[in-house]
Amino acid sequence: MATIAFIGLGNMGGPMASNLLKAGHDLTVFDLSEDAVRTLVDEGAKSAASVQEAAAAAECVITMLPAGHHVETVYLGDNGLLASIPSTTMVLDSSTIAPETARKVAEAAVEKGIAFMDTPVSGGVGGAKAGTLTFICGGEPEAFEKAKPILEGMGKNIFHAGPHGAGQVAKICNNMLLAILMSGTSEALALGVKNGLDPAVLSEIMKQSSGGNWALNVYNPWPGVMEGAPASRDYQGGFLVNLMNKDLGLALDNAVKNQAAVPMGSLARNLFQLHASQGNGTLDFSSIQRFYYQDKH
Amino acid sequence: MATIAFIGLGNMGGPMASNLLKAGHDLTVFDLSEDAVRTLVDEGAKSAASVQEAAAAAECVITMLPAGHHVETVYLGDNGLLASIPSTTMVLDSSTIAPETARKVAEAAVEKGIAFMDTPVSGGVGGAKAGTLTFICGGEPEAFEKAKPILEGMGKNIFHAGPHGAGQVAKICNNMLLAILMSGTSEALALGVKNGLDPAVLSEIMKQSSGGNWALNVYNPWPGVMEGAPASRDYQGGFLVNLMNKDLGLALDNAVKNQAAVPMGSLARNLFQLHASQGNGTLDFSSIQRFYYQDKH
Amino acid sequence: MATIAFIGLGNMGGPMASNLLKAGHDLTVFDLSEDAVRTLVDEGAKSAASVQEAAAAAECVITMLPAGHHVETVYLGDNGLLASIPSTTMVLDSSTIAPETARKVAEAAVEKGIAFMDTPVSGGVGGAKAGTLTFICGGEPEAFEKAKPILEGMGKNIFHAGPHGAGQVAKICNNMLLAILMSGTSEALALGVKNGLDPAVLSEIMKQSSGGNWALNVYNPWPGVMEGAPASRDYQGGFLVNLMNKDLGLALDNAVKNQAAVPMGSLARNLFQLHASQGNGTLDFSSIQRFYYQDKH
Amino acid sequence: MATIAFIGLGNMGGPMASNLLKAGHDLTVFDLSEDAVRTLVDEGAKSAASVQEAAAAAECVITMLPAGHHVETVYLGDNGLLASIPSTTMVLDSSTIAPETARKVAEAAVEKGIAFMDTPVSGGVGGAKAGTLTFICGGEPEAFEKAKPILEGMGKNIFHAGPHGAGQVAKICNNMLLAILMSGTSEALALGVKNGLDPAVLSEIMKQSSGGNWALNVYNPWPGVMEGAPASRDYQGGFLVNLMNKDLGLALDNAVKNQAAVPMGSLARNLFQLHASQGNGTLDFSSIQRFYYQDKH
Repeated sequence: MATIAFIGLGNMGGPMASNLLKAGHDLTVFDLSEDAVRTLVDEGAKSAASVQEAAAAAECVITMLPAGHHVETVYLGDNGLLASIPSTTMVLDSSTIAPETARKVAEAAVEKGIAFMDTPVSGGVGGAKAGTLTFICGGEPEAFEKAKPILEGMGKNIFHAGPHGAGQVAKICNNMLLAILMSGTSEALALGVKNGLDPAVLSEIMKQSSGGNWALNVYNPWPGVMEGAPASRDYQGGFLVNLMNKDLGLALDNAVKNQAAVPMGSLARNLFQLHASQGNGTLDFSSIQRFYYQDKH
Repeated sequence: MATIAFIGLGNMGGPMASNLLKAGHDLTVFDLSEDAVRTLVDEGAKSAASVQEAAAAAECVITMLPAGHHVETVYLGDNGLLASIPSTTMVLDSSTIAPETARKVAEAAVEKGIAFMDTPVSGGVGGAKAGTLTFICGGEPEAFEKAKPILEGMGKNIFHAGPHGAGQVAKICNNMLLAILMSGTSEALALGVKNGLDPAVLSEIMKQSSGGNWALNVYNPWPGVMEGAPASRDYQGGFLVNLMNKDLGLALDNAVKNQAAVPMGSLARNLFQLHASQGNGTLDFSSIQRFYYQDKH
Repeated sequence: MATIAFIGLGNMGGPMASNLLKAGHDLTVFDLSEDAVRTLVDEGAKSAASVQEAAAAAECVITMLPAGHHVETVYLGDNGLLASIPSTTMVLDSSTIAPETARKVAEAAVEKGIAFMDTPVSGGVGGAKAGTLTFICGGEPEAFEKAKPILEGMGKNIFHAGPHGAGQVAKICNNMLLAILMSGTSEALALGVKNGLDPAVLSEIMKQSSGGNWALNVYNPWPGVMEGAPASRDYQGGFLVNLMNKDLGLALDNAVKNQAAVPMGSLARNLFQLHASQGNGTLDFSSIQRFYYQDKH
Repeated sequence: MATIAFIGLGNMGGPMASNLLKAGHDLTVFDLSEDAVRTLVDEGAKSAASVQEAAAAAECVITMLPAGHHVETVYLGDNGLLASIPSTTMVLDSSTIAPETARKVAEAAVEKGIAFMDTPVSGGVGGAKAGTLTFICGGEPEAFEKAKPILEGMGKNIFHAGPHGAGQVAKICNNMLLAILMSGTSEALALGVKNGLDPAVLSEIMKQSSGGNWALNVYNPWPGVMEGAPASRDYQGGFLVNLMNKDLGLALDNAVKNQAAVPMGSLARNLFQLHASQGNGTLDFSSIQRFYYQDKH
């Protein structure tokens, strides 16, 4: 078992840290929210007064932060962790941030001889709690092998996407595709219903045909078709529209920087943005179904 | 076993009829192509000099024709089959046509007491040959139950989508969604590759994550990633861009008529149309990958 | 001055007929609405009990009808006008309908030796009342020259777009472009305002720069920027979203039939459709501005 | 007349500096290209060995640089101009860069008491040579009044868009709208031609109707319709596809940052990107017409 510092105990980080405790790791946590820290301490974690203190004695530092500038602040600069931790520490950043930011931190780590990996996750709050997250990692193969047993304490599928930054790239490619297929599925269901079809019947047909996809399998966007899906509880909880928009923003920034054409992803981003602007930012992202077909129809 | 008339022996109809023979049915065929007829006769079918003659003694008539106006010509009007066949004949139209055309023929059939179903298929030439097609049926439950054993001679999944026309509706919804997820998958792969990722690794990650869909499962659009997929044989064979465009045209016409918004499907239609206009109409539709990322890059 | 039969006295047809009277023509009118007929009779028109009676003695028949099937009903078939009017009658259809319907009627007319032109209009109810409509004509040059003086009684710009159907084609091309530039202008204004710019200042800059277009010149979509524009009266009156959607539907049907790619027009159609679905179908089409930027922001 | 330092003598900056000389100003220039410097020196400018030397004695510094990081390098940091020039110098940056970069430089300038304005231009190389550029300025009203006479030496329309950064915002809004209307116009023309219409006739009709826009007025994208337009010289020269893509990238980055929906602009960006990827990046941007309708058709 490892001595781990866990920084960032939000909706995702909290349950992830909790699962590391359950897996038997020795955990020191840090977060600006005292409540979040207390929950973990109650479960057996130590708390630290600062990021630096939390990381001081850790074999492995894991960060789960909202955006790229938080990650830069924690790791880079005069007060950054990379300046204080020993070169034997392994650093895993599970935040979803721009690949170039991940590469920037990685380069600074490599300069100091520190093994760094970007390890963003897929699977949402549900997966974080159940310990069934998917980790998509970018970094050296040795670091990947070393990190894998730790990540397995929080997730089920642990992928090695490629070198530094590749984890972030694969994450934003996947989530862009997810936005496309969720919009597309909602659109196809709305078209069918406007033609008088039963959404459950149409869902079943497409699921078993060439339209089959993750949304139809486990996350049907039409209310009532799939028990347990956010659509069947008024789109509460799940993966918020605002978070999907954040990821789509990262994907589009990346596409512009790489002169890549992403017409379908761009359109999906604009549909989700319009949906958010109409007051739906804190609903589950499968609520894009409502954008296509509203109850009042 | 049934006495069946099969009209339309093209790339799809030919192997479908062939499978009915293998299933032990008594088959009379008609097609304008003598070669197509001869192939089936060699396999044990009878040939007829006209559509009317083929259908005269049949318990069940199956048509597999290129477009709606062919279907109207065969069934409606003074010389149409509905005017000559007995009311006990069951009529199955497996052509992909507009739902309103299917309903028009169905109404004419109902007036004469003839059981009619629209039974379009999914699965392409490969599925037609292997007898693994998906049939998506619209019509009365009784007709569906009666048709099912016959359709099972040509396909694996036999769905009842709803009343007359519902088979066509579900087919075009499914194929619109297919066009969306094939474009989206191609786009995500191209974005990853522009970032230096390995398309096979990225495919595997997305397939097992929330980006998972039929294209990643069985029809990967990136050359070399999936043995046996059209992408790995220069996009030869498979489901042609031109045929996908035909189905997308039906979907958009339907959306306009029903005042349904289909932004993702419309964009996909335009991407496939641009791809066709650049000389790729007779390639497999997964060649849309090339539209995003060309060899010369 | 000519003896004219005018069929269809709706929001557009009524004031058009009225202007023909003012221009001194001898007018017989027909409409299913008695109120509409009475208004014209009060202004000096004769009324007729049927389309046939109205057209019987006319040198020129003008129709202004809601959709293609009305036009087919009036002109074609056993009771259609083309079967009863003398071959010396000139026929002008100002309805906005599919080019192929216009060509179908034109062919039937040509067979009987009757000069027919499709003469759809641009300019809305305001232009109809003011007599400043634009007429976009398809047909023979001789017919165009003969029709021009009559059309000048109702409009300002009279264009000859080409052979039969070309008037309808040019109309739907123009209106598709109009939908694109109105969406685009609204989008650019919303982006500027989100950045803190004054919409009036930004409008002025773009109007005089390379973003200049008809919307910025005479139909600014931002409330309060342009006095007299529908945007400055809560988007009441003007050219309704539902009518724009009808024209965009004609454009997309035409594009599908001609295998033309119209990605921008398709997207505009879907934005206007979503806008209509959210309850805005009877607002002026410049209300698409609200779709981008809502008051509550 | 003013003593001016002009930094950046590229395709745009060169002729702009030249026009300042003609207007009688005292000019010191700097560029990494010796050829570019020599041309201006031959016309009467002084040359300087560094940016700092050029600016030392200037009342006004004007920069025309390719991208935001060049602008940051020239002005900010220990060696940046803002650290060395007197607070009485007026600084005008005519580069097209992100509004937040412009604001960042402006804030640094304001701290030192230096008047700074973002003054991006519209009008292309042609406008730069002819001295008919449009300047779109962001900054204090006093600075605007002081800069105006100098800018009038290079341009015709000088707009004050608002506070710092507003010039850049208005520029990217305008160019996004330009991309939309150029795509839309090309699309409408292609649709008309596919229907058999004459592109010149259709252009004229739309220009005088509600489809009227800058492209139809002065920059028709169809070859041969407008003498002197890039379309009539194989799309050579003009405003390159790659430069339009740069501006569209700035617009989309801005939209993502401001959570603004820009579906039409996003689609236009992707069409231009696909067009560039197919080898057309160095053609004039009106060559998007070819993307819709190729000669081989």
